[in-house]
Amino acid sequence: MARWQPDAAQRLVMAALDLFAEQGYENTTVIEIAERAGLTKSTFFRHFPDKREVLFGGQTMTGLLAGGIAAAPATATPLEAIGHALDAVGRDAFTPNLREFSARRRAVIAANPELQEREALKGLALIVAMTAALEQRGVPELTARVAADLGALTLKIAYDRWSDTTDGAEFSDIARRTLSELQAASALC
Amino acid sequence: MARWQPDAAQRLVMAALDLFAEQGYENTTVIEIAERAGLTKSTFFRHFPDKREVLFGGQTMTGLLAGGIAAAPATATPLEAIGHALDAVGRDAFTPNLREFSARRRAVIAANPELQEREALKGLALIVAMTAALEQRGVPELTARVAADLGALTLKIAYDRWSDTTDGAEFSDIARRTLSELQAASALC
Repeated sequence: MARWQPDAAQRLVMAALDLFAEQGYENTTVIEIAERAGLTKSTFFRHFPDKREVLFGGQTMTGLLAGGIAAAPATATPLEAIGHALDAVGRDAFTPNLREFSARRRAVIAANPELQEREALKGLALIVAMTAALEQRGVPELTARVAADLGALTLKIAYDRWSDTTDGAEFSDIARRTLSELQAASALC
Repeated sequence: MARWQPDAAQRLVMAALDLFAEQGYENTTVIEIAERAGLTKSTFFRHFPDKREVLFGGQTMTGLLAGGIAAAPATATPLEAIGHALDAVGRDAFTPNLREFSARRRAVIAANPELQEREALKGLALIVAMTAALEQRGVPELTARVAADLGALTLKIAYDRWSDTTDGAEFSDIARRTLSELQAASALC
């Protein structure tokens, strides 16, 4: 276990992001990413199944959202429980020190259709996880699906807005405001 | 142009569906699909970019939804315009004679993760198309996105329900009922 590097995954992500931005996603190999991070190809594959996955850190977001929904007060409505989950995301994932990284990550994804596909699929996995977590709270199936859909849309729009901020606004504040706007929009449909 | 076959695409779809059901999606090649349909590989690739695409007939659904939204009365709310689009889908795409085919297609997709990915991405394309069509009607951006999301969820649930029916219920009736249920669910979020 002597060669175990606790921050290997993070170094691989940063190396990948640099290389994708410098020379394009298509032109970057897993070996180059590993070398830039000072690691081996086999270390890369211990952390990520493929090159595409390196910008989509595993199950973190799914777990945070499901956990946040489960931990909301028993009296919370479905969208209040989702608000609770968005707070957890701001506290444990989209922290202020990661804002600049998120903005660069977003630009790299926007430049590559394959990465956009992966991001889209991750978004669907989030909807499935939120729906299940809401149903666990006794929310009827259709209501849970509608609320989870709105939660995923909130997360996406809030992430874009947060990546664009320059005034130090925190993710959870932006997300809460976005959720309110989408609720209001929903009433106008 | 003598070799042009007006129903080639349809024959390829039916052949693919049979082969996927018989021997699995993974074990089926484009050549086998073309042979079963009595056509050549190059004819296959004139109609579809790859094997995965053969069950996702091009841009039909996107066009039907956008067209249906555009053709709704000027006074229609966003969700009423989407209801109008769902009627168009029932009239021009999910016609009663295609119900059994749809049920078989759905079973094949459910059995294969790659096909599920493609279906998920097609779903996102539908949301983009519906959002744009609603914005064309003057609907504000966030409202359009929320309504399009709800429209896509309606389409998905209604398609599943319609595929399962055995009583001859028409797609547009099922879709209209589903849309009402989701609207009611939305108010309970």
